[in-house]
Amino acid sequence: RCHQRSMAMLDIPFPPFLAFLASLGVLCVALVGSWCQHWRGGFSLDGGSRTFNWHPVLMVTGLVVLYGAAALVYRIPGTWNGPKLPWKLLHGGLALGAFVLTVLGLAAVFRFHNSNGTPNMYSLHSWMGLATVLLFSCQWAAGLGAFLLPWAPAWLRELYKPIHIFFGSTILMLSVASCVSGINEKLFFSLKNGTTAYKLLPAEAVFANTLGMLILLFGVLVVGALARPSWKRPDPNSLDSRQVLGMPPLGAQP
Amino acid sequence: RCHQRSMAMLDIPFPPFLAFLASLGVLCVALVGSWCQHWRGGFSLDGGSRTFNWHPVLMVTGLVVLYGAAALVYRIPGTWNGPKLPWKLLHGGLALGAFVLTVLGLAAVFRFHNSNGTPNMYSLHSWMGLATVLLFSCQWAAGLGAFLLPWAPAWLRELYKPIHIFFGSTILMLSVASCVSGINEKLFFSLKNGTTAYKLLPAEAVFANTLGMLILLFGVLVVGALARPSWKRPDPNSLDSRQVLGMPPLGAQP
Repeated sequence: RCHQRSMAMLDIPFPPFLAFLASLGVLCVALVGSWCQHWRGGFSLDGGSRTFNWHPVLMVTGLVVLYGAAALVYRIPGTWNGPKLPWKLLHGGLALGAFVLTVLGLAAVFRFHNSNGTPNMYSLHSWMGLATVLLFSCQWAAGLGAFLLPWAPAWLRELYKPIHIFFGSTILMLSVASCVSGINEKLFFSLKNGTTAYKLLPAEAVFANTLGMLILLFGVLVVGALARPSWKRPDPNSLDSRQVLGMPPLGAQP
Repeated sequence: RCHQRSMAMLDIPFPPFLAFLASLGVLCVALVGSWCQHWRGGFSLDGGSRTFNWHPVLMVTGLVVLYGAAALVYRIPGTWNGPKLPWKLLHGGLALGAFVLTVLGLAAVFRFHNSNGTPNMYSLHSWMGLATVLLFSCQWAAGLGAFLLPWAPAWLRELYKPIHIFFGSTILMLSVASCVSGINEKLFFSLKNGTTAYKLLPAEAVFANTLGMLILLFGVLVVGALARPSWKRPDPNSLDSRQVLGMPPLGAQP
């Protein structure tokens, strides 16, 4: 049937999609690094604008790309069978790596502001960004407590799991929104004088705008991949899985 | 059982949640209107900054609040039974209203730029915003063609439905990200002189930052409500619904 064939055509397998996402993530990291290196003077730890440059690089690498990788671990079909602990450690470890880079990224901007007498936490970008990082730290700690440490009872895990999943996607959306507002803000700050003003769309603006659009694309694709039913780990308690496993579904008359 | 009780506690019914969301949406519209009226000089059609003020008001009202209302129509349990056409017309009509306000909101900013010799479409905010509006127009036209006009075959509707649902949430996320980057940008533009600079966090900045955070909250709650399995219209073809309806599930041995 035409419909069955069309549905099958849309049913992309996860691994090639993951390879595409990984390339896109690496591209985002390379572009944010090139932007700061080529147009913004490179990197240092002296408290000046080259210290600030660590902020976009660490945030995009940690809170977007590495975070996205952590979120997608359980979509790899290889994680669905066998012992779950190694995959939990990978998921939690990638998320911890993302969190460490995020905290260093915050340290970079706070150090830059403090060295230059600029107040912290006044812009909407900073409010949204800090809210994102606070949610992420709660998410990580609650995930550790509920899923990795052996003390949480099964009912608590089951209760918390949909909440953890919801905030997993939400934090990524917020982090992407923080990144694009930050890139937009930085371009208005940096491109000020008459010949390279942002509104004249110099090469740097095209480059960094493109970076922002690719970060958006990465975020949308990760959130979409997380939501896609056929890429989810089959729930051993669901009716569908019981049928696949040859068990009679609950309530079926034998 | 403790677990069952806890799960039931989390299972909020949709109507009170919708009432809360509606209040939050009205609050966002009221706040963006007050911001432009009280701090940004009010509204006019003369091509000056008071023409620009229509832009944030129309975008928040159209592309966030009215769009969110349109997206949530099929989560109202009353839409699940009886003829579907009136609800389709409501969904499409609200989306059309959102689209009209969005186009007027674009017209306001283009008119302001053109009257003042400012280039259009240079900032990341504008790139992201225009991409959002273009996606929205495709979404509306494709939705009309596939679901409201009687010509689309059933297999095409079924094929397109998950795509329409995915882009429904995606466009709202992009639109919220566009709003917060726009508010951030506008505050940097408007709050420039020494006594009210954005970095000194004057009352206007606190007010508009709060507006931005509430828009984010609205977007996250709508996307979350759309994703929540228990609030989705039961699919008459799914195993669960067949069981509820007393029909034997596919593949069950009689």
